[in-house]
Amino acid sequence: MAMEAMGLAQPTPPEATKFALPPGSGSGRKVVVLGAGIAGLVSTYELQRAGYDVTVLEARDRIGGRVWTIRGGDRIVQFGRAMQRAEFDDGLYLNAGAARIPATHRAILGYARRFGVKLEPFVNQNRSAGWDFAGKVHEERSMAFGIRGQIAELLAKAIDQHALDSVMPKAERDFFRGFLGFYGGLDEKGKFVNLGGSAGFATEGGAYGQSAKDLAPLSIKEILSGPAVGLPLIFDSIPDMQSSMLQPVGGMDRIADAIYQQVKARVRLSTPISAIRRTASGVRIEHASGMTEADYCICTLPLPILKRLPSDFSPAKKAAIAAAPGYQRSVKVAFESPRFWEEQDIYGGLAWTDRKNENVIYPSSDFGSPKGVLVGAYAAGWTNQDNPDAFSALSNDQQFRIVRDSIDALHPGKSALMSKPVTVRWGLTPYSEGVSPNYPGNPGNPNRPDYYPELYKAEGPIVFAGEHLSFQPAWQEGAALSAHAALELVQAMVADRAAA
Amino acid sequence: MAMEAMGLAQPTPPEATKFALPPGSGSGRKVVVLGAGIAGLVSTYELQRAGYDVTVLEARDRIGGRVWTIRGGDRIVQFGRAMQRAEFDDGLYLNAGAARIPATHRAILGYARRFGVKLEPFVNQNRSAGWDFAGKVHEERSMAFGIRGQIAELLAKAIDQHALDSVMPKAERDFFRGFLGFYGGLDEKGKFVNLGGSAGFATEGGAYGQSAKDLAPLSIKEILSGPAVGLPLIFDSIPDMQSSMLQPVGGMDRIADAIYQQVKARVRLSTPISAIRRTASGVRIEHASGMTEADYCICTLPLPILKRLPSDFSPAKKAAIAAAPGYQRSVKVAFESPRFWEEQDIYGGLAWTDRKNENVIYPSSDFGSPKGVLVGAYAAGWTNQDNPDAFSALSNDQQFRIVRDSIDALHPGKSALMSKPVTVRWGLTPYSEGVSPNYPGNPGNPNRPDYYPELYKAEGPIVFAGEHLSFQPAWQEGAALSAHAALELVQAMVADRAAA
Repeated sequence: MAMEAMGLAQPTPPEATKFALPPGSGSGRKVVVLGAGIAGLVSTYELQRAGYDVTVLEARDRIGGRVWTIRGGDRIVQFGRAMQRAEFDDGLYLNAGAARIPATHRAILGYARRFGVKLEPFVNQNRSAGWDFAGKVHEERSMAFGIRGQIAELLAKAIDQHALDSVMPKAERDFFRGFLGFYGGLDEKGKFVNLGGSAGFATEGGAYGQSAKDLAPLSIKEILSGPAVGLPLIFDSIPDMQSSMLQPVGGMDRIADAIYQQVKARVRLSTPISAIRRTASGVRIEHASGMTEADYCICTLPLPILKRLPSDFSPAKKAAIAAAPGYQRSVKVAFESPRFWEEQDIYGGLAWTDRKNENVIYPSSDFGSPKGVLVGAYAAGWTNQDNPDAFSALSNDQQFRIVRDSIDALHPGKSALMSKPVTVRWGLTPYSEGVSPNYPGNPGNPNRPDYYPELYKAEGPIVFAGEHLSFQPAWQEGAALSAHAALELVQAMVADRAAA
Repeated sequence: MAMEAMGLAQPTPPEATKFALPPGSGSGRKVVVLGAGIAGLVSTYELQRAGYDVTVLEARDRIGGRVWTIRGGDRIVQFGRAMQRAEFDDGLYLNAGAARIPATHRAILGYARRFGVKLEPFVNQNRSAGWDFAGKVHEERSMAFGIRGQIAELLAKAIDQHALDSVMPKAERDFFRGFLGFYGGLDEKGKFVNLGGSAGFATEGGAYGQSAKDLAPLSIKEILSGPAVGLPLIFDSIPDMQSSMLQPVGGMDRIADAIYQQVKARVRLSTPISAIRRTASGVRIEHASGMTEADYCICTLPLPILKRLPSDFSPAKKAAIAAAPGYQRSVKVAFESPRFWEEQDIYGGLAWTDRKNENVIYPSSDFGSPKGVLVGAYAAGWTNQDNPDAFSALSNDQQFRIVRDSIDALHPGKSALMSKPVTVRWGLTPYSEGVSPNYPGNPGNPNRPDYYPELYKAEGPIVFAGEHLSFQPAWQEGAALSAHAALELVQAMVADRAAA
């Protein structure tokens, strides 16, 4: 009972970049890890370091899980869809799952650095990129600094009309009002005129007498054309999306692969699990090629998989798993293409739209090289919560058409240059069946539903890990930190038994 | 007279990335170019392509002008100061002058791409970086998204108190008010509580039960501690500072050097000019090793140099040059150091302070490598207009002390790791004597003073170029575009003579 309750103990703080179990503490203990995604690989590496005898069972023929970098020749298998084979040129790739790392994600970056994985900037914001809403394309700068200017104008007006006299002492108010004009690009009368051109130029400054002409600002109505534009307008302030962000040079799978290289002998690929059983002394995992017994188990399987898997879990655990929401069924569609966007000042970053492709991602590296992989759709509910499921249901050709139309709106006539499309529907991807649980509220919402604590509670010798058991959901960081938390539970059980 | 007036003709629009003079049009014509910075190199390359016989006279023993990448072994000579020699390890460098390129600067990027110069992201914004104002250090996110939240709260309050009822129809107002809460991180009552953590976390989200705790927001008074913080708060909205930005891999001088490689035989280094003379048929340039005669001259010398140089310029031209303001006397101080900042989530980007070092620049590339060059001071008037002159006047040791103290405020105890400091005072740098003219008003102010058009007017066969003759001052783009404008004047004169 005491052990069971430990599932609710405080986990390692995320500042612990140098997590380690006591050396030799696992000697003579056997652990089976389910899943060779980030949570499973981190668990395995740390267990191996501490002297445990570890086996990892992975259903796929590759490691990485939702960290999936697709290169030329790779197969894309989806439920109920024809197999695709990516035909990208050598050196080109699509990060179909995880694609960026916030600089604050110390655990995953710690592993990247420990194993010498090279990191480069991921450009997550581009003021020159196009935003295509309500049938009109504007540069991001016109939208992002437009709304800021309009807000500043309205507040300046309120101040000038003495609406804040009682809120702020005069000296502070005067200084603030002066700042507001500067911040918003207001003229002397307090009107937003895009003074200084933050929201765009009608004419760029040039040589000799060619002065810049500021672009006429968009109205609030033009900017806030509908609810779709809300998320894009706050996107770069989302804690996990703030500059600077990183990516491994050569593909996101470099980190998973670097950990894998450390534990390769422990990993059994193409070994889907058919049941999780408890035994008198530990666990028994049943799978295609027989069974694996161990003292402990770290289960990193996503909830949609766990939901269907026969197990000896307690009724409470089963109820919690059943109660958990479905996973976000995001879709990424990518094309190989000459880099026409770089001729239009776009070096990395994102475009946004209220079309069904929602979000476009331009490559952040190898600028000036002949080709790149353009993510033409990242349908994840950014601009329409209900879109991913609907987009996922479309045929490949329908999706590709939507992307081509969107690219032609952003870059007139250029979609003709794009070729070799692939689509990855996470909802239809075996052994994932989605990206991350849609817990009610915001992704990091502290008010998780009642069943949430039960999800990460240990079941005797079985402990649980995965991004879904963290407040960094859908991030590699959450997977790595949850592995650390699970490992501490195992370690405590081992210590407990040794003391008994 | 017609020719003279052409100095006021419209220049090439900046969209022209593929500028070219008519092939063969310069055959039999001789041009002398003064200065082998970007304006001079671009001029020379384009003249050579069009068949002109070109000679470039450059005072220094290197090309590039204010594009100056300092590596181990390089000497730093400054007026009235002991010579410094940079001791950086191999592969490390300081971009002492130009250090970043806006993605919209198509002319200079066009040359970079034409000559295969590799480009990578320059990280110009970092929400994890420290801001050190009024003796307190906060993360940039707390300041940047703090002020946004406070502004949203004040405006939400005004709306809730019906201050905008007459300004906006109800439906639009309701939608806008809803957006404002989302945008600002306001709670249901419209109070800025940093909902969602954009302005920072007190506790980061972790594994299992560790939910994130939002940081308590800073007040307007805490954020707007004084005028110094104003520029940093709007910095990333300045048109030329907006994401994405670029740098050449390996040092900013890669672009200048690539152009130089095309015209190397035409360039005479270490050849300072002593006079600019007009002759019956053209120009005669007097210099240390004799004189150079030509049909035309493109003069790219900075105004402080031109001011003292004997010439046959008209009284109007001389008066305009005399009237031009002094140049910005910016200073950069850099140290070699292990990358302690990367252990604190800082991968590229800028820190800001109201101390005398003003601005800190972290390296944007080679993350995870053992060392980097940290720009510990970029004193350019960012946070105090009068500071650069005062900072420039300090001794090296005084400057290094200021930087060390500032770094210790941002990264406690870490300045001890820094070594091999150098300082580059642009005001004391021979043949530059500053960075760019301080024209009254904003840098790109369309209302340039009356003498400005006279500065770029041709003087018979002598035409003028340089960043100071553009509305992209202090940028390589301005230098390149001004060269294009000057070349068109030369071309028009040649065509005129051929027609005569």
